[in-house]
Parts: sequence; structure tokens; C-alpha cells
Amino acid sequence: MSTPVDVDALRASVTRQGALVRELKQNGAAAEDVKKAVDQLKALKIQLEVETAKQGPEEDGLSKTDKKALDDLLIRKMFVVPSFEIYGGIGGFYDFGPPACALKANLLKAWRRHFVFEDKLLEVECTNLMPEVVLKTSGHVDRFTDLMVKCTKSGECYRADKLLEDHVENLLNKNPTMSAEEQEKHRLNATMAESFSPEELHKVFQEYGIKAPATGADLSAPIPFNLMFQCHIGPEGNLVGYLRPETAQGIFLNFRRLLEFNAGKVPFGCAQIGSAFRNEISPRGGLLRVREFQQAEIEYFVNPKDKSHAKFGTVAALELSLLTKQHQLTDGKTVQMSCGEAVKEGIIANETLAYYLARTHLFVSKIGVDMKRVRFRQHLDTEMSHYATDCWDLEIKMSAGWVECAGHADRSCYDLTVHAKKSKVEMVGTHKFETPEKRQIVDMKPNKGKMGRSFKADLAQINEALEEMKNDVTKALAFEEELATKGEATLGPLCSGKSFTITREMLSIQVVEKMISEEKFIPSVIEPSFGIGRILTAIFEHNFYAREGDEKRGVMSFAPLIAPIKVAVLPLSSNPVFTSYAEELEVAFANEDVECKLDSSSVAIGRKYARADELGIPYAVTVDFETANDRAVTLRERDSCAQVRIPMAQVVTKVRKLVNGSASWKDLESRYTVVSVQEE
Amino acid sequence: MSTPVDVDALRASVTRQGALVRELKQNGAAAEDVKKAVDQLKALKIQLEVETAKQGPEEDGLSKTDKKALDDLLIRKMFVVPSFEIYGGIGGFYDFGPPACALKANLLKAWRRHFVFEDKLLEVECTNLMPEVVLKTSGHVDRFTDLMVKCTKSGECYRADKLLEDHVENLLNKNPTMSAEEQEKHRLNATMAESFSPEELHKVFQEYGIKAPATGADLSAPIPFNLMFQCHIGPEGNLVGYLRPETAQGIFLNFRRLLEFNAGKVPFGCAQIGSAFRNEISPRGGLLRVREFQQAEIEYFVNPKDKSHAKFGTVAALELSLLTKQHQLTDGKTVQMSCGEAVKEGIIANETLAYYLARTHLFVSKIGVDMKRVRFRQHLDTEMSHYATDCWDLEIKMSAGWVECAGHADRSCYDLTVHAKKSKVEMVGTHKFETPEKRQIVDMKPNKGKMGRSFKADLAQINEALEEMKNDVTKALAFEEELATKGEATLGPLCSGKSFTITREMLSIQVVEKMISEEKFIPSVIEPSFGIGRILTAIFEHNFYAREGDEKRGVMSFAPLIAPIKVAVLPLSSNPVFTSYAEELEVAFANEDVECKLDSSSVAIGRKYARADELGIPYAVTVDFETANDRAVTLRERDSCAQVRIPMAQVVTKVRKLVNGSASWKDLESRYTVVSVQEE
Repeated sequence: MSTPVDVDALRASVTRQGALVRELKQNGAAAEDVKKAVDQLKALKIQLEVETAKQGPEEDGLSKTDKKALDDLLIRKMFVVPSFEIYGGIGGFYDFGPPACALKANLLKAWRRHFVFEDKLLEVECTNLMPEVVLKTSGHVDRFTDLMVKCTKSGECYRADKLLEDHVENLLNKNPTMSAEEQEKHRLNATMAESFSPEELHKVFQEYGIKAPATGADLSAPIPFNLMFQCHIGPEGNLVGYLRPETAQGIFLNFRRLLEFNAGKVPFGCAQIGSAFRNEISPRGGLLRVREFQQAEIEYFVNPKDKSHAKFGTVAALELSLLTKQHQLTDGKTVQMSCGEAVKEGIIANETLAYYLARTHLFVSKIGVDMKRVRFRQHLDTEMSHYATDCWDLEIKMSAGWVECAGHADRSCYDLTVHAKKSKVEMVGTHKFETPEKRQIVDMKPNKGKMGRSFKADLAQINEALEEMKNDVTKALAFEEELATKGEATLGPLCSGKSFTITREMLSIQVVEKMISEEKFIPSVIEPSFGIGRILTAIFEHNFYAREGDEKRGVMSFAPLIAPIKVAVLPLSSNPVFTSYAEELEVAFANEDVECKLDSSSVAIGRKYARADELGIPYAVTVDFETANDRAVTLRERDSCAQVRIPMAQVVTKVRKLVNGSASWKDLESRYTVVSVQEE
Repeated sequence: MSTPVDVDALRASVTRQGALVRELKQNGAAAEDVKKAVDQLKALKIQLEVETAKQGPEEDGLSKTDKKALDDLLIRKMFVVPSFEIYGGIGGFYDFGPPACALKANLLKAWRRHFVFEDKLLEVECTNLMPEVVLKTSGHVDRFTDLMVKCTKSGECYRADKLLEDHVENLLNKNPTMSAEEQEKHRLNATMAESFSPEELHKVFQEYGIKAPATGADLSAPIPFNLMFQCHIGPEGNLVGYLRPETAQGIFLNFRRLLEFNAGKVPFGCAQIGSAFRNEISPRGGLLRVREFQQAEIEYFVNPKDKSHAKFGTVAALELSLLTKQHQLTDGKTVQMSCGEAVKEGIIANETLAYYLARTHLFVSKIGVDMKRVRFRQHLDTEMSHYATDCWDLEIKMSAGWVECAGHADRSCYDLTVHAKKSKVEMVGTHKFETPEKRQIVDMKPNKGKMGRSFKADLAQINEALEEMKNDVTKALAFEEELATKGEATLGPLCSGKSFTITREMLSIQVVEKMISEEKFIPSVIEPSFGIGRILTAIFEHNFYAREGDEKRGVMSFAPLIAPIKVAVLPLSSNPVFTSYAEELEVAFANEDVECKLDSSSVAIGRKYARADELGIPYAVTVDFETANDRAVTLRERDSCAQVRIPMAQVVTKVRKLVNGSASWKDLESRYTVVSVQEE
């Protein structure tokens, strides 16, 4: 017998090797070194695939049968249906029907309560359409792209990586006698498709001789396709706009007013819940990759020199499942660690970021996500945007694998800096010292006329560079030293690539000591960002089960807090006496704001329970033959099917308490008569 | 002294004459008749303008000073601010800041509770982006337009009516000596600008010789400009999509699934709250005409033969302010009439439409709209879409005049019919009879082969016409009679304009009697549709006042139900003892879900009250020197400034009851010690 292979460790090797490849590329390493590293990566990936296949299906996921039953239920009960279905639908667009609409509203209410109310965040609602300048400045116009190839004959476009995958699949299907080794070579090209550069991908396309599927004509080289939907604002058609690809930008644009609303104090946070739009080339996976979706985002602004959080103490002891970058590169294991420890060990970059990981952990556990299928995965250094300092994704395991459902990024001061620079509106916070502090201040005396005449159009970038030098006393002193001794000094190369000679006549620099009582700073921003559709998908998958019995009946075991309907009122039969009691209860529940559904149809009670189970209604009240005598009803708990007999006068308050968590089913069983019922 | 002129009656004459002009045009009357009617209309309008000016400003509006103070407050307290402000903003886009965000959330919560929960409507959430086929079928692609002219040199576009208005204004400014009569002639062209046809407008432009303002170049003839924002969905760029101009379409598309969700039963209603987008050529009036806005719409599906409403009895006695089409055309007066009477008199077309007018009346009175400034205006026959049978606008009077804030239209079966026809998906309800009924059924026996050979491509329209004939027993019998006697009969002209000869060999028709137990029908739809931004504007204007005093302090007297924050907790000074009580109260309010704002700044209590007033916080709790002794606080009511002394242990429950309406301020004053305070 062979020793069992540690798949986690193997996965870590793949991750590590992938990081090495990216690093080599980024540093412009020699082609042969890159090739060697890539070959090694390929070999490791093949090994991982083989070993993973040996492990068999994972135990905590949804079985294929249950997944099919769930998908069927979601459509049949109109949770989520394809948009424009009568016209054949379009990939990546879904409508929410009545139960999912209510579920989502309850989820967002819980989110707002948890994140906004409890932490006194501000909240804004900005527009979906934004002018180009906003998204050009944020970087989306230039960098929010996927690779695409175009048919030179028809102009039809294809997502390059998908086309390569399809080509490889066809090739393998057509050549069943191909050697295993050769098969693997092709398969790996498909696997790597998404991470190839445009040039690499072009080369692979040429090697395979891939043509346009519809026409057989040649394809263009891969070109980046921007994922934003473009519109024109106004009648002239010359003002380009985009549908926002994220809600965050609206918050950054409003920073100055928000700061004023917060009486000028930093830290503070602002939330926004709203739609975002991405013109995905290949939407897939139901709500996982769609063209229109809902986000709930927070931008928490902090002093970059002090990222502590006033309420960190309340979560310091909370244990989180962390898949650190360190572990991803070594043994691939997820570790349990308290927030306090993770910050102390430098694993999570700062208190505010850790605070939000903890708050997210608490939130998803409230809404019925299975915490055994939750982890926080840290981004590798090679994976993060250049401006980000630390990022952690909330990943939830679903039938599609581990899915990123929320991001938590320390985006440093990137966003405010670029918008301030472009708009020329200052966006800074002020730190007031308790007592004035002594500081070395760089004081520059430029000869503006002389510099203007010498540098003309270049003056702006020179001034900017000098402005920046003011923040670096050592550099400023060295520059002055050079001016003093050599009579001139070289500034640059600057962002344009040019260097400039500054002479003694143009500039003198002094460093003086001053007492200052406050300091301006561009705030850093910690951004927790939730994908609502993905979290809903997790809730659907983690809460669906088939009840054992004659026919397997689907049950949605939604947490009462977010269940679309809290209680079903069920007359045992269509006897008018039952109906009148049921209607009395319906009004009573409505008056207490408990969402209630009356099922007065003539089907058997077992069928009514089954209907309630499919909609995830946690409690059911049944009016029966005894009710007229004892003015009591039976109350059924969805998951255990346990029932108690409870006076009508008390049932509304009790259900309300069960729903808001101030009473438990156990309490009820200890207080009221437990009824033993065999459900059909 | 001259007899005072009845302005309402005069306005009615203008309306009447306007309706006549439209009718003449629609019926293709002779040009001279139209001209005569138009001239008369012009004369009447001038008279109305003169008389209205004599009346002076209306008494129940906002004064100019208060309007300015309100606008200032809305920006300063970040209720509503221009979007992309740091980049200079774009007309027609606004962001909601923290207080308006909460106000809107509360307003929508109240709307959902009132319309969706209380009447058990379904609710959906559909996408903002829709493919062209949906909006082509609904008529928006062809008809959702404004007139625009284009500069032949630069290509710049202008809204034609606005350009004409500007031109006239310039003309008058430049010619101060122009006779009053001539001035009026020009002014009227400006007034009529919006209702001219493209040809009429073109003629006026040529008469004036209007050129492009920027270049002085010639302008194109007026062309219709579609107000929808166009995008391309998917990477190919050949699938045109639009941002929805209304939320309604998503509900129609989902009709079949909704019907199934409702167990196949009609009537039922479905609501949707969401964004809508219109690329206005000239956005204006703050939130009144914007390019992105929120709607809350209901589509209530009924049997066209039975538009009664089960709950009509609950509103029959409710009196509404109705400006009927009759009165608009006679004395211009608004009348008070009960819903029951209005339906009985045939003034409101049916119970369901009247039920929704009543529900809207009740809703706006709940949310703090001044009911003296509310009326329901019926559309004139000439004003309605061709398919609509009766429409009533909720109009609210604001500083901009009477503004349409919600529409209530009986749209007949138009929407479902066009979508069913285009998508070939049947969208019908079923009416099951209590006992089977005897019906005459038209039974057609066509010779398909013969007809196919004779009519070829025309067969589809012929079959459609025959299908339609099945619904008209008399017509079918007459047709058969002709076939029987003459051996042939003429069908048409059909929609294509062609007529066809059907022969005896091709078709025989029989009318048979059958017992049937159910009947299919395409539901009619009653559509209440709310513009949330406009209602918010009404709430702002109707609830703002300046409190008399040293400095006039602005107060937002929001109804507690929708106030963004329900209670302010105010320590009298920054004494730490006060702060600790205040924090205790803050937690207690949060636990009871009462939105609360703690102001622990060091400003004077009067300033804190003023801040709370500006945000429209209805109640304020003050912690003072006595609190440590008596564990009591003062509770202040915003509008009266009255205060009572109340134990801390009771204040949270009492405020909660005040907010949800189960207690009144009077109750509190009778129970607790009234404190007499002179606010600074």
C-alpha cells in the first residue's frame, strides 16, 4: 500500500509555484527561467488533479440528486427565475420571485442592522450610471477587462480562454486514442487559459490553428474587452457613461461631504447597498457570475498611521478559520486563530481589518450559513492590486467549490488619492494632537520666474516632485546639500521618465522646527464588500435538505431571522369554522409584524406542511377540531416536525419571540403539552 | 369694480379647448378648422395667464425664503446632493446622503407594509437592463421620445421645445419696445412648444430662423429622440439592451410564473420597487425630473369582465379630492366624493381602480403629506394612451405647482396581449364557473390544404382573423350565411390592408351549444405607479418650517413613522456622568429597534435641539443634573417643544409606542409631569 498523499500540501505546492511564475513574469525574468517554472507548475497541477480524483467526492457538500432537487425547487417556487424567460432569456440575468425577494429583503435588513446600526456607520445611495471620468480615474476604464478574440469575417467575438477550452475538449473527443501524456498536455493548456497573457494566448491559438467556430475564418489576436456596460448620457451623445461595476466609487466621491456630516472626525465608515453591472463574456453558475447583481459595501476610513479599532476588544477572542498566505504556500491548511492573536502575530495587517473579518464571521453565522464550510483566505502578495496592503476573502464552500462571497481589503489611500488628484478637490482627514508636537518642516523657496522660463510645460511635474520631497526631510536635506556644494542637483527621473537639473538660483531649501497641533492625512480605507447573490446561493445550498419519507420532500431550513415567511396558518380542512379561526390568527400575526401565510386550500394537512417546508417557513400553526373547544392550536417546528399544543391567545407572542431569538423551541416544549404526530 | 373672474372656470375652458384641438388633429380635421381652434386656445391661454397673475401668490405653498432655506438644509445636512459633485456634477443625477437614505428606506418600508403586506400582493425584483425585444414589444423603442434638433455643423443636439423657449425669451429681451400683443404671440409659441408635432415645430423654427446657439449653423428638422439609455449586452455587441424606463415590464414578463405561484387564481397583484432610467434632454427641478429614479409599482391583474375588488367595502365611504375630466372641462373645480359614490356614478371606471385611489390617499396621509395639497386628477380622453380606459394621477402641490407623484391607470389587457403575441407564450387567466354554463361555440372546419395552396404566406393573418371571428357569433353566422348563399365571402381588409376571398370549399362554420365550466381571458391590469423621488420632495416641502426665534431655525417635521432617526439622546453637557446615562439609553433604544442618535458634543443643549430638528428627529431625551438623583430624563416633542419628565426605565417603551402610533403625546402629558422650558 502506498502512503496517502497530503492533498492540502500538494495544493500548497501548486499555489507556491504559481506565485513564483507570476513573480518571475512581473520581474521580467529570462524566458527560459519562466518556461522552467511553468513546466514545473504544469507537472504539479497534473499530480494534484490525479490525487484529488482519488479522494472521491467531499462529504460536506450537496449530493448531485439534492442539487438537482434544489435547482428544481428554486425555479418551481419562483425563488430565482431566468429574466426575460418568455423571450428565451439571456445568460447572466435573473429575476427574484416573491420568496427570494422577501428573503433578500430580510438578509439586507439583517446586514444593515449588523453592520450599519450596530456600528453607527453612515449610509449613502448613489447612482448606477456614472460618467467616464469617475471610472477612468478609478482605473476601471483601462483595467477592468477580459481577453477576447474576434472573427475576421463576421466580427463575432469570443472569450479567448473559453474558446481555447472548447477547442481542447473537441480535440480530445475526436482523438480517443491519444496517449495519456499528450492528453494531459492539451488539458493543461485549457486549465491555464485564464492566466495566459494576450501574447501567450495568441501563440497557443496559432499553434492549435483555432478558427472562428461559426465561420471557420481567422481570429484576431486576443484583445482586452472591458466588462463595463457603456451608455451615452444626454442627447448629444458625447458624454460617455458606464453602469457602475461596483458601488464603492460613489462613497469615495462623497468623501468630503460624509466627513463633514461626521463633524470632521476620522475614523468613520460609510455603507452602500445597491446594484452593480458587469458585462461578463461567459456568465455561469446561476447567481455566481451574473451581469447584474447586488452588492453591500462598506468603506471604513482610517488614519493610515493608526488602524486600530475602538471596538476591537469585543472581537479579540473570537476564533476565525484562516487560510493564510503563509499556509497556502506551505501546507495548505486552514488554521483556527483568535482575532487578537492574528493581529498580534502580524498575520492580519491591522485591527480594523481583523474587526471586520470578525464581524463578517458573526454575520454569516447569524443568517444560517454552515460555519464548517466557511473560511477566510488571504490574498497572496502576487495576487493583490499594487495599492492594497492586505486582503482576505470570505470563502464559502458550495457545490461549485470554494466561492468568494465577500472581500475584505485594506486598499490604503489609493482611491481618495486618485480622485483628489483628478478632481483637484482635497480629500483629507485631520488628526488633532492632544498637545502640540515639535516637527521638522521642509520649507522651500523657489524662484518661480526662473523655473517657469527654464521648464515651461514640465513645471507642473517638477512642482509635484518638490511638493512630495517636503514629506521626506532626509531627502530634502540631501538635495539642499547638493545645491549648496555643486550649485545644482538632479531631480528625477520623474513619472514622465525625464530628469531635470535644478540650480541654486532656482531653489533653496531649509528645514525648520515648528510646533504643530494637527496633521492632515489622506485616509486609508478598509473595504468589506459583500456579493448578495453569492451569499443567497450559499444560504440556499446550506439550508436545503430532502426529508426522508414516502416521497422525498424538499425542505428549506432558513434561519427564522431571514425566512421570507415566519409562520404558516393552516386550517386542518376547509371547514368554515377552521377558516374563521385561521383568519383571526392571520390578523393577529400581521398586527405584530410577523409575516404569515394562510393556506386555506382543501389539500391534506401533510401537503400543506410540505408546501410550507418548501418555502422555508419555520413555524406552522394548525387549527383543528379541538380548537373550537380549547381555543388552542398546534404549533409545529419545521426541522424537527415536533409539535406543541398552545393557546391561541399566546401563540402570536411566542412565535414572535422564537423568530427574534428571545425564546427557544426547548422553552416551549418545557412549558406546553408536546403533541406526538406522525406526519404523512 | 370688475366682477372677479373664476380662474378655475377659465382654466377649464383652456383644458376643454386643448382637448378639442387634440381631437381635431387626431381625427384629421381640415387645417383651417384646426387653426381656428388653436387660435381660440391661444386667446384663452393669454386670458388665463393674465388672470392668474392678478390672483397673487397662493397661500398654502412654501415662501421663497423658506424654499431657499429648505434647499440649503437639504444640501448642508446631506439629504440630497448632486452626484459626481467633485467632478462638477451632471444634470439629473442625485445621491442620497445618510438622512435621506434612511428616510427613503422607511418610506419604502411603509409602502411595502401598506400595499404589499396588508393586501397580500406578490413582489418581484427584476433586472434594470432589458433586451430590445421587451421594450420594442412594449412600444418604448418606437414611442418613448422627445423632439430634438441637431446642429448640421457640429452635430450638437438640443431639445427642440427648450430651444424655442430660449429663442423667444431672447427675442423679447432684445425688443423691449415690442407691442404687448406681439409679445404675447411669441410667448404663446414658447408655451405651446412641448405640444407641437415635428412638422409644426419645424415650421415655427423656420419662421423664426432659429440657428444652433453654439455655431450659428442650420439645424436639422426636429427628430424624435428616444429617452432610453442604450447598451450592448454580451461581448459581440450585437445584442442591444436598454435600461428599463419603468419597472412594470418585468412584472408582465413574469405573469405566467406569478399566476402559477398564486395557484392559478386571478385577481392578484404584484409589486416591484426599483430603479428606472430616462435620458432626459433637460433634467430639472431637483428630484422632479431626473435621469435615474426609483419607482414603486403594482400591476393588479383582474378579469376584464369583473373589475370588482373584494375589499372595496373597506374604502367605499372614504372621501377623495377628485378633479374629474368632466370638471376639468367645465368649472375646473376639485370635488369631494366618496369612493363608493364615484364608482356608482361612473366617475371612476371600476372598483379596483377606485380601491387603489383610496389606498394611495390613505398612504400619503400616513407619511406626512399635507392632504389639503393633494388631489386625484383624471386624464382627459384625449390625453390617455389608446389602450387605457381610465387614468387618475395623484397630484401633490409643491413650489413647482401641482406635480404628478403617482399614476393609477386601467391599462386594459394591452401589455399582456402584446407580449403574448410577440413571445408566443399564452398569458391568460381562467374563470371557473360555479355551475357549468351553456354557451354558443363557433366551430370552424377549414380545408387546410386548399387554404394553404391558395393563400401561402398570407395564411397566418387569415387564420388569425378567423380565430378572432370565433369570439363573435353574429359575425361568424353572417360569414357562413354568405358562404352558403354566394359560395364565397370576403375576409378583410386585414391588418396588412389586404382582403381575401374565402370559398365554400375552404371553410364551413357551425355554431353549436356547449356546456362549459370555465372561460379563459387575458387579464386587464390596474397599475398604481409611484415616483419615490417626487413623493420625497413633497415630504420635504410639506414638512419644512422655520421656527420663530432669535435666529430662524429650520425644522423637518417628518412623521415619526418615516423619520430617519426616531429619538435624539442628549447629555446636557459633556460631564462624564451624563454621558454614561446617555450611552445606557442608546443601547436600550437600539435593543428595541428604535433608531437613535447620541449627540455627546460639547455644544449647548439649544444647539443640540436645533441639530435634531434639522434632521427631523421627532423626540429628544435629555440627561441632566437631576438624572443621577431621580433616574429620570426629560422627553421633548419636536413640533410643540413641550417636555415631560419621565423615568429612564419607561422612556424607551414610551418612545417606541409614540413612534408606532400606539401612544400619543397627550397620553404622556396626562401621565407625567410637564416641564416648562424656555428654549434658547
